Amino acid sequence: MIQGIFTPNLIPFRADGAIHETELRRMIHWLIDKGVGGLYPNGSTGEFIRLNFEERKRVIRIIAEENRGRVPILAGAAEANINEILEAAALYAELGCVAISLTGPYYFKVSQESVEEYFREIARRSPIDILLYNIPQFANEISLPVVERLARDCPRIVGIKDSSRDFPRLVATLHKLKAIRPEFTVLTGTEEILLPSLLMGADGGTIATSGVVPEVVMKLYREFKAGNLAEAKRIQFKLLDLIEAMFAGPIFPEGFRAAASLRGFEMGHSRQPISSKEKADLSGLRGHIACILAECGFGEAAGACIRPLAAAATGGHGRVDVDRIVRDVMARVARPGA
Amino acid sequence: MIQGIFTPNLIPFRADGAIHETELRRMIHWLIDKGVGGLYPNGSTGEFIRLNFEERKRVIRIIAEENRGRVPILAGAAEANINEILEAAALYAELGCVAISLTGPYYFKVSQESVEEYFREIARRSPIDILLYNIPQFANEISLPVVERLARDCPRIVGIKDSSRDFPRLVATLHKLKAIRPEFTVLTGTEEILLPSLLMGADGGTIATSGVVPEVVMKLYREFKAGNLAEAKRIQFKLLDLIEAMFAGPIFPEGFRAAASLRGFEMGHSRQPISSKEKADLSGLRGHIACILAECGFGEAAGACIRPLAAAATGGHGRVDVDRIVRDVMARVARPGA
Amino acid sequence: MIQGIFTPNLIPFRADGAIHETELRRMIHWLIDKGVGGLYPNGSTGEFIRLNFEERKRVIRIIAEENRGRVPILAGAAEANINEILEAAALYAELGCVAISLTGPYYFKVSQESVEEYFREIARRSPIDILLYNIPQFANEISLPVVERLARDCPRIVGIKDSSRDFPRLVATLHKLKAIRPEFTVLTGTEEILLPSLLMGADGGTIATSGVVPEVVMKLYREFKAGNLAEAKRIQFKLLDLIEAMFAGPIFPEGFRAAASLRGFEMGHSRQPISSKEKADLSGLRGHIACILAECGFGEAAGACIRPLAAAATGGHGRVDVDRIVRDVMARVARPGA
Amino acid sequence: MIQGIFTPNLIPFRADGAIHETELRRMIHWLIDKGVGGLYPNGSTGEFIRLNFEERKRVIRIIAEENRGRVPILAGAAEANINEILEAAALYAELGCVAISLTGPYYFKVSQESVEEYFREIARRSPIDILLYNIPQFANEISLPVVERLARDCPRIVGIKDSSRDFPRLVATLHKLKAIRPEFTVLTGTEEILLPSLLMGADGGTIATSGVVPEVVMKLYREFKAGNLAEAKRIQFKLLDLIEAMFAGPIFPEGFRAAASLRGFEMGHSRQPISSKEKADLSGLRGHIACILAECGFGEAAGACIRPLAAAATGGHGRVDVDRIVRDVMARVARPGA
Repeated sequence: MIQGIFTPNLIPFRADGAIHETELRRMIHWLIDKGVGGLYPNGSTGEFIRLNFEERKRVIRIIAEENRGRVPILAGAAEANINEILEAAALYAELGCVAISLTGPYYFKVSQESVEEYFREIARRSPIDILLYNIPQFANEISLPVVERLARDCPRIVGIKDSSRDFPRLVATLHKLKAIRPEFTVLTGTEEILLPSLLMGADGGTIATSGVVPEVVMKLYREFKAGNLAEAKRIQFKLLDLIEAMFAGPIFPEGFRAAASLRGFEMGHSRQPISSKEKADLSGLRGHIACILAECGFGEAAGACIRPLAAAATGGHGRVDVDRIVRDVMARVARPGA
Repeated sequence: MIQGIFTPNLIPFRADGAIHETELRRMIHWLIDKGVGGLYPNGSTGEFIRLNFEERKRVIRIIAEENRGRVPILAGAAEANINEILEAAALYAELGCVAISLTGPYYFKVSQESVEEYFREIARRSPIDILLYNIPQFANEISLPVVERLARDCPRIVGIKDSSRDFPRLVATLHKLKAIRPEFTVLTGTEEILLPSLLMGADGGTIATSGVVPEVVMKLYREFKAGNLAEAKRIQFKLLDLIEAMFAGPIFPEGFRAAASLRGFEMGHSRQPISSKEKADLSGLRGHIACILAECGFGEAAGACIRPLAAAATGGHGRVDVDRIVRDVMARVARPGA
Repeated sequence: MIQGIFTPNLIPFRADGAIHETELRRMIHWLIDKGVGGLYPNGSTGEFIRLNFEERKRVIRIIAEENRGRVPILAGAAEANINEILEAAALYAELGCVAISLTGPYYFKVSQESVEEYFREIARRSPIDILLYNIPQFANEISLPVVERLARDCPRIVGIKDSSRDFPRLVATLHKLKAIRPEFTVLTGTEEILLPSLLMGADGGTIATSGVVPEVVMKLYREFKAGNLAEAKRIQFKLLDLIEAMFAGPIFPEGFRAAASLRGFEMGHSRQPISSKEKADLSGLRGHIACILAECGFGEAAGACIRPLAAAATGGHGRVDVDRIVRDVMARVARPGA
Repeated sequence: MIQGIFTPNLIPFRADGAIHETELRRMIHWLIDKGVGGLYPNGSTGEFIRLNFEERKRVIRIIAEENRGRVPILAGAAEANINEILEAAALYAELGCVAISLTGPYYFKVSQESVEEYFREIARRSPIDILLYNIPQFANEISLPVVERLARDCPRIVGIKDSSRDFPRLVATLHKLKAIRPEFTVLTGTEEILLPSLLMGADGGTIATSGVVPEVVMKLYREFKAGNLAEAKRIQFKLLDLIEAMFAGPIFPEGFRAAASLRGFEMGHSRQPISSKEKADLSGLRGHIACILAECGFGEAAGACIRPLAAAATGGHGRVDVDRIVRDVMARVARPGA
């Protein structure tokens, strides 16, 4: 059964935009050394949509090679059509992955009946177990009644990872699915509510923050398993500022990539260009994240801790506080020597 | 400090559409006898928008009279403009309510800056404490940065009731607001996640289900307070089917009103007309709710327990399963004597 | 049959927040003198939701008195429940209004079946004709299949005013409704597409801009009626900048109210408070609107024409261009003597 | 300058799911014979997202080969990242396409600043002209201020195709962009409002219906160009039923593909599986479309004209009318011999 904390793998890029393979290998070793429960490449955090099919297959191959069977690998396989999903599935099975993870179809809106039929057909033909990946922000929702019917009929579908941020839905999923198939895995993909999800019965999570501070997220999980609710809760709340800062990046997952660079990895630039103003914002945000990391005891980030003007102005929320900018500019101007 | 379980008051109507005052009084007594922590009239569950201003004031007066100071009353006061809100506030203060509850402005979309200024002006002039009521489904959102600034600057604003169903936001609210003002009340209005909200530090909730099965909701709350997490969790999950069924009504809060009628109250018909098909659905739903109530030990509902065709076809989710309807119709037709 | 250009009436307020009745009367005279085709009080532009029931009835009474039967009055009657709608309908019929206009129910989301039943019940009991008012931004949508069924069955329902901004829907409405009931009125409430709506067969519009520059909007309409498409098109495009500026106000309909004040009416302040920053924005916007009005030949606005810093920074779109603000502030600071 | 009616190319599939190349070639000849103004492969109608990169390049190559320079080809090139877009652009330039068409990035939500930077970088490096493709239903919006700035700064960006269905936005686009660059192409992608778009100044459209009834759409366009407004309007309204029926398919663009099959093309099955109920719906819809085509004078479709139960029940809107299904089933059952 799939359970515990899976780390969605960030992708380091080289200056020429290619995947930085040696750095990716180094990150895998580091994560496994730090004790993460599993690896989850080619998800949203892994920017699967900005890679091509060959690159996505290459990522899984690299990770499988470096892992050498130590932790389970959940491989994102949301390709453009069923034939390519099945091609990916065959390869990932061969490479020893524990399951593939599949979003609903994306780009076009399709009916829930078509979503259901899509998963039924894949489940009939897949050589490897499937984890449904519900992320209605980016892809067609996989509604709970559809999940129920798939779980009843398709042994290949072994669980769901829910990144909808909809906690009432997660609780309803646990209520309904565990009654049908107690071994059906329910993972949360919402970092901010990992602990309450576990408390209500979730089997674990795919938690991008565990790619940045695996020490802290794994401690939260161990405290939960040990029944130390108060300590687990303290850690969950402590993580919120870091999570908020990482999500405040101009585009996802740049905040997470900035944080990884502060842990010593060469992450490179995103394939999605950002404006010069957004670059400045991101630089400011990086300084802010460094402060949080340093406060958490990660000394390697301390040197980068700085709160520049623009980051301060957004109050860490990504919303621009114009009054504050103008006040700040005016204050600087008013200062002698400015 | 405002805390515990507040019951959003349902409104019984007479056959002529007027408020059924004697039945309302009887419900108040019953709820207080059953131990609810407080009363919350003129919220969404109380259909404030379908009453007129005189009726809303009358509701508070009746409830205050019947309560005789036994439990705190949180009075909804979301009137159409600030002058009328302040008129309501003055009356509700005089009647001994503990605070008023205020949604953001509704109908027009307004900026968060205007939402903030709206609450600032009311807070400056109100003779009674104010609980912010965040329900972005129906009224302008009160964003978390706005809540933070209001909490810092406005002593009259003493808390927030969050009905957004957004649990990451509730957790962030607890994280930020308790750091600024530890006594600032944070209540959830999302029934399905009462327990995890309490576990993460919420002070209580406005829980419409407590108007139907106050015995069960108050037991959940007592078990939580006593540290019996497993038992509290068992009750929370047990409540989910009932909550789902009550929300499946054709219009809100008809499912809750149907459930209240099964506990013995004369609720009458909604002021919002529904179609004859929806009336049939509601009748079927009432039979389904009766079964759940009977299973929970409320014998008075047992006689009404029935699962009619239409209710079954929605699978309790409010979504119509056409295949099933057609199959059912065909099956009936195929039966000899049909 | 209801047709032509109806002016949604803006409400002038006195310093104490009361309706400024003498100014309202003066506006009515002015509009009728300028040749508007009809009056439309208590719509969204008339801020019906921020008035109370007594005030809404008072507005209709004043307008009926001043109109003295010269132009048709379409009276907004979207009260909180059916009994009050019918009370309003009886009064507005007695005052000689040509029809009432009704949005779908607001605040709660209700099913299309309930929306349909709501209008059926009102249509059965109303003493006056009804125009459906589709504005899904603020109230429950009235879907096209519902409009079709109501038009077939309810003689009291004589038309629809569509403010959804959804032109394919307006075209489909014309296609379907004119086939069922050729005399069924279809008005657009979307100012920017008045001309193409007329060209495709709409009977007219409720056009808030006609409350500010009735001369221009009525000329557009006359040119259209005379078959002068090129001239009508020139005017429609000319109006776009003014419309865009009026919608750019911090809250609706402050931009329209600012424009009316530039035509010489004492409009007072909104009942919805706005922040001091928004007040500054609105003041800048007023200067910008004054320039547009002056360019259109309305000399009375010329003196107020000014493009202040904040208005410039939004580029007239209501979106804040922070770079530009900072550059502007810096430029001012850099100037000697600043 | 890009203008006129471009046909978004549907993709015929073979039984094994591969692109049916001979049938695609046959369709291209037929379309050009019928006089369409241009071809538009690899758009949404061409299901680019369900093909892989090699297939998308193959589609353009086939179309360029068959076209032999007769009509302009606008080639969809919305690949997963900028390097692959540029690879496609180089090939499509070499193949003689007039421009590439590009949606905003899809899957992730990105800021408008990032959308702008994305197009700036592509425009700097592209060897071929670019048409922006605004389709906020499926990909990140390209907001009008962004379009304005790109048009000012990037000569490679020569126009926009707007499929947002937002006509006020299209009118604003014409107003602002034609003032900056009169030769900037503005095409509509919204079939139902082709004529009013042309009347307001649009340069043409990408009209999927022209892939099904090119005779009718081209006649509408010719009547418009000849100044025969009344006849153009009659055709536009006549097309509405067909368009509505084609959009009523269970998933896009199955309704359009069914209609093409009725014109004699072997279209095969979608790569996106649909449920058996949806297959039955589609079959019913095909019969309904056949009736409309036959009424339009396309005799080849007459034999397939039939209105089965399920299609009738949706009233052609894709919404299920359960009452009607049950009534129909009951009526059948009541008939002797059923």
